[in-house]
Amino acid sequence: MKVNGQDFKTVWREGASVFLIEQNILPFEFKIFESKNYIQTCLAITTMLVRGAIALEAAAAYALVQAFLEAPTNDLWNYVDKAKKEIEATRPTAVNLFYAVKRVYDTAKNSIDPVAASQVEAEKMVAESITATKKIGEYGAELLKDGMNIETHCNAGWLGCVDWGTALSPMYIAHRAGKKIFVYADETRPRGQGSRLTAWELQNEGVPHAIIPDNAGAHLMSQGKIDLMIVGADRIASNGDTANKIGTLEKAIAAKYFGVPFYVAAPLATFDLHCLSGKDIKIEERGEDEVLFQTGVDEAGQLKKVLVCSPGSHAINPGFDVTPAELISGIITEKGIIPANTESIKQLQLLFLGD
Amino acid sequence: MKVNGQDFKTVWREGASVFLIEQNILPFEFKIFESKNYIQTCLAITTMLVRGAIALEAAAAYALVQAFLEAPTNDLWNYVDKAKKEIEATRPTAVNLFYAVKRVYDTAKNSIDPVAASQVEAEKMVAESITATKKIGEYGAELLKDGMNIETHCNAGWLGCVDWGTALSPMYIAHRAGKKIFVYADETRPRGQGSRLTAWELQNEGVPHAIIPDNAGAHLMSQGKIDLMIVGADRIASNGDTANKIGTLEKAIAAKYFGVPFYVAAPLATFDLHCLSGKDIKIEERGEDEVLFQTGVDEAGQLKKVLVCSPGSHAINPGFDVTPAELISGIITEKGIIPANTESIKQLQLLFLGD
Repeated sequence: MKVNGQDFKTVWREGASVFLIEQNILPFEFKIFESKNYIQTCLAITTMLVRGAIALEAAAAYALVQAFLEAPTNDLWNYVDKAKKEIEATRPTAVNLFYAVKRVYDTAKNSIDPVAASQVEAEKMVAESITATKKIGEYGAELLKDGMNIETHCNAGWLGCVDWGTALSPMYIAHRAGKKIFVYADETRPRGQGSRLTAWELQNEGVPHAIIPDNAGAHLMSQGKIDLMIVGADRIASNGDTANKIGTLEKAIAAKYFGVPFYVAAPLATFDLHCLSGKDIKIEERGEDEVLFQTGVDEAGQLKKVLVCSPGSHAINPGFDVTPAELISGIITEKGIIPANTESIKQLQLLFLGD
Repeated sequence: MKVNGQDFKTVWREGASVFLIEQNILPFEFKIFESKNYIQTCLAITTMLVRGAIALEAAAAYALVQAFLEAPTNDLWNYVDKAKKEIEATRPTAVNLFYAVKRVYDTAKNSIDPVAASQVEAEKMVAESITATKKIGEYGAELLKDGMNIETHCNAGWLGCVDWGTALSPMYIAHRAGKKIFVYADETRPRGQGSRLTAWELQNEGVPHAIIPDNAGAHLMSQGKIDLMIVGADRIASNGDTANKIGTLEKAIAAKYFGVPFYVAAPLATFDLHCLSGKDIKIEERGEDEVLFQTGVDEAGQLKKVLVCSPGSHAINPGFDVTPAELISGIITEKGIIPANTESIKQLQLLFLGD
């Protein structure tokens, strides 16, 4: 997608170098980090220079490719096996990362030219993920009519993927197709992914938008100013219940109350069929400092951390919430838009497995 | 109420001096401003050193008393009339302020000792307002059972009144009566009145509490962690529709969805019977800088303003929203708790007028 008029991906590879957008300094600074070996790429993952399930998948796959390229030919597998373990240890809870590393590793293992095979497989995987997010965009864009106002929560944009994004992908496709849309980006406290990352993405892509406090969503809906809402997903249970960034539930309830269609956009990898309903999803409790303190740039352009709450009070900071399927108008996947219910999700799974 | 273990009011008078808690520097610093003449008190109002309808009422009444005390005996009314106009001009939209000034002025005008009468009337008015907010607390406290978790939005506490508060008053009364309650204070972006003022009040009064991001309310309700919600009101229409700080509507909808009782606490002065429904209430659009920037204290204890959003993006910042009466379980007034509907509000008005 566009950054200052130029096309970028969040992660890409040129030979033995992996290039990454430094997401931890966005939106205040735009820099590309060149990682010259797998250890540097691991560090980029652990320091959250790169974040988002699909972007992590690509970074991890490329890290393994770097290991293949660096490995001494007479000791290839020892070197790669050690690297694999290190890459897997960077973010032990990121399922996609394990999957990506395993896929590249297994393909190489079964090849007569492992070094070449690792490169081909990693590129294939990244290309597939770009196609999937673009497909989500194309299906989702069918919902977006000229003149529509769309609200989104958190950042389910291209920064968390390699390109296009999930919830934002339909907006990019619609905008590029010349449809006049306006996006309301929920600030998404406490971490402000909406006011920082989504707003940054939309601005660079030239999509008309405004940041709104999380408190303003229902009010705008009550004024008829929101035609549709699209959010991303962290995990979708087999009955359609969806875990996503804290505050999603509140928006979904408000959308239902005002009759605003509420869509979830997510690739098939987000469905967890072992998870029968939202009740089985454990919600991460995060540290209170994210609520009590805020970072931003001061007048001198310096990044500062300031206490924004009453000193001495504590905060509670649940990271996610679960939106019941009954509040979701549909799930936009790379295979089409499906209703959020057990039957449709099962059918999708059957079709997908037979794909 | 308590501050560092000592009893305080937001505004009080000792002879010709008016004392005010410097609310514009809370919660990071606690200071009392001594205003020695009406001009200084006017300045305190315009600079928002004092804020909140009921606190403003008291400050304005006391300012007029100061004018009576300062005025040359041979030119009393010229001096007072001029002062009255200046006091009224401090916050032209604050209806309570006009009412307070008029009440003190008219009483003095009809007295043979205007200077003494102004003091008596101002003190009477302030005492009445303290009684009203305490009554709201007593009625509201009947709803609060031992062990309850209560959520509140924005700051409808004693800082906006002279003492006790509106939405927080029932919590103070219940807490002082020995009931074990826990309060979840919504941060209330963009200005953070919850995380700054409500949290500060609760901490000083010793009420167990936690700050939560505005996004977390519905999630906590879904977990059964909120037993009741109480908020304040800026204006209540004659059908019970209630204008209050932005985000109130969203909480009311979530509360309805999860079956959590949702109460509004407000003195009778908040009812606007000329306003037939929420549709007649105009919502103030505030400047975007409140969303884009945040103030807080840095490590060195200095108050800093930092940009917290993507540079160059704009924000939309509605100050209030309207909660439809159908979402309100009841309105806690100084005359009792009434249902939020036209009939009950009319009846209250009749009773009140006959009071």
